[in-house]
Amino acid sequence: MVDPFTIARRVQFAETDLAGVLHFSNYFRWMEEVEHAFWRNEALSVVMDGKDGRISWPRVSVTCDYFAPLHFEDEVELRFSVMSIGEKSMTFEVEFVHGGERVAVGRITAVCCATAPGSFEPVAIPTDLRRRLEALLRR
Amino acid sequence: MVDPFTIARRVQFAETDLAGVLHFSNYFRWMEEVEHAFWRNEALSVVMDGKDGRISWPRVSVTCDYFAPLHFEDEVELRFSVMSIGEKSMTFEVEFVHGGERVAVGRITAVCCATAPGSFEPVAIPTDLRRRLEALLRR
Amino acid sequence: MVDPFTIARRVQFAETDLAGVLHFSNYFRWMEEVEHAFWRNEALSVVMDGKDGRISWPRVSVTCDYFAPLHFEDEVELRFSVMSIGEKSMTFEVEFVHGGERVAVGRITAVCCATAPGSFEPVAIPTDLRRRLEALLRR
Amino acid sequence: MVDPFTIARRVQFAETDLAGVLHFSNYFRWMEEVEHAFWRNEALSVVMDGKDGRISWPRVSVTCDYFAPLHFEDEVELRFSVMSIGEKSMTFEVEFVHGGERVAVGRITAVCCATAPGSFEPVAIPTDLRRRLEALLRR
Repeated sequence: MVDPFTIARRVQFAETDLAGVLHFSNYFRWMEEVEHAFWRNEALSVVMDGKDGRISWPRVSVTCDYFAPLHFEDEVELRFSVMSIGEKSMTFEVEFVHGGERVAVGRITAVCCATAPGSFEPVAIPTDLRRRLEALLRR
Repeated sequence: MVDPFTIARRVQFAETDLAGVLHFSNYFRWMEEVEHAFWRNEALSVVMDGKDGRISWPRVSVTCDYFAPLHFEDEVELRFSVMSIGEKSMTFEVEFVHGGERVAVGRITAVCCATAPGSFEPVAIPTDLRRRLEALLRR
Repeated sequence: MVDPFTIARRVQFAETDLAGVLHFSNYFRWMEEVEHAFWRNEALSVVMDGKDGRISWPRVSVTCDYFAPLHFEDEVELRFSVMSIGEKSMTFEVEFVHGGERVAVGRITAVCCATAPGSFEPVAIPTDLRRRLEALLRR
Repeated sequence: MVDPFTIARRVQFAETDLAGVLHFSNYFRWMEEVEHAFWRNEALSVVMDGKDGRISWPRVSVTCDYFAPLHFEDEVELRFSVMSIGEKSMTFEVEFVHGGERVAVGRITAVCCATAPGSFEPVAIPTDLRRRLEALLRR
């Protein structure tokens, strides 16, 4: 049993729209923020150096489902879980919890890539990194 | 046969990230831009007045799949199609085409709601609007 | 002597651009974030209720000077100071400090307004609020 | 007499905030959009190659003054003028015009730099570029 990695994040004014709620596109920015906090918590950065040069994780497929809106100054728990790990990709999930209620849930599938500015080449996830991620899989 | 409603959109500098590409969250902003251009083209606004007061379309489920990155100053065709219409919801798809190649595709399911600032109440899609949307369904 | 009100803020991936640095427009979002944290710290919200209805603070003049760039994952101190208070307006300054070095400084002049959605009417700063702000002026 | 270089830009939904207006930080993104359109119109890109390698224009000082708010779907004229050219820097101004009224005006001073990702070194503006800019100065 692995608990989600969790951070708190408050809705900022510039992230709301004229409907008075957090704009739906910003949930994806928040998913990325908790993902990057997760990497830092593992003493890694999302921009890492591997044996094939710099490694990065461009997204190939993302989803988000929304159950209730979020408002300016709401403080939200972002719960990050690694859901699956492939040879070259990983999928993580972020639950958005406010006032004890799950208000949204999103998933991101990202591919491990050797990168140069503006270009990406998929590579196998480095072995040591894969082992660490596997130990953190939600079961 | 209904052709997609299409606009062109150029990648702006502030929309790129340090990886040198259009940030993945911005595709959702672009989907919304072509959606709103579609409403304007139908002589409507996404913020409309119905018999239940002001009508708006909060999102309940969104996805995007990415096939190739987009770079600063790329000019991209956004092709918008209405995919399905429920009693209270609609789903649309946006294809991102660059240099003749489909580089991403996204879907948004939105619910027809009577709105006050910061709150939403699902309502049936007004009959005349439903008829217009049905005539525009991709078949 | 009043010390600046200070928060820490980390550069997020989506806030960088293809030049690899925090986009210059985002400094203004950060200034607003520390401003709103200041209001919360005073047990107020930037969206407050006054005797003339809801009060808000639209901006009339803003500036920022940049001395050195900020990069992904940099943790930055934002130091907020109230610089002056007029009958209907206030000016605050935010210093951006990274690694002990002041990397940017910005100022925002905002006007106290009675607001309805999308419109603003300047009003005198409520007396009790003015007193609290005057006690917090940087001298 | 040099006329401003002008583009039209519509306020997008995600650019508004809960006050129902274009967020003040987005004016800076718009200034940059018309600046980059200006470069393209001159058959240049803001990211150019010079004899010192890649040239870019990081900002050192920016301002904006706001006279009236902008709302969702407003179509705005952005009028770009080159105001001054130094040995290594230039200053441009953008006027925001809506319904024949000037609703905001901003200025950006940018420095000509040889760039590598995340770093900048000021250099003299290349001679041919300087000549072209001088011919476009607002007088």
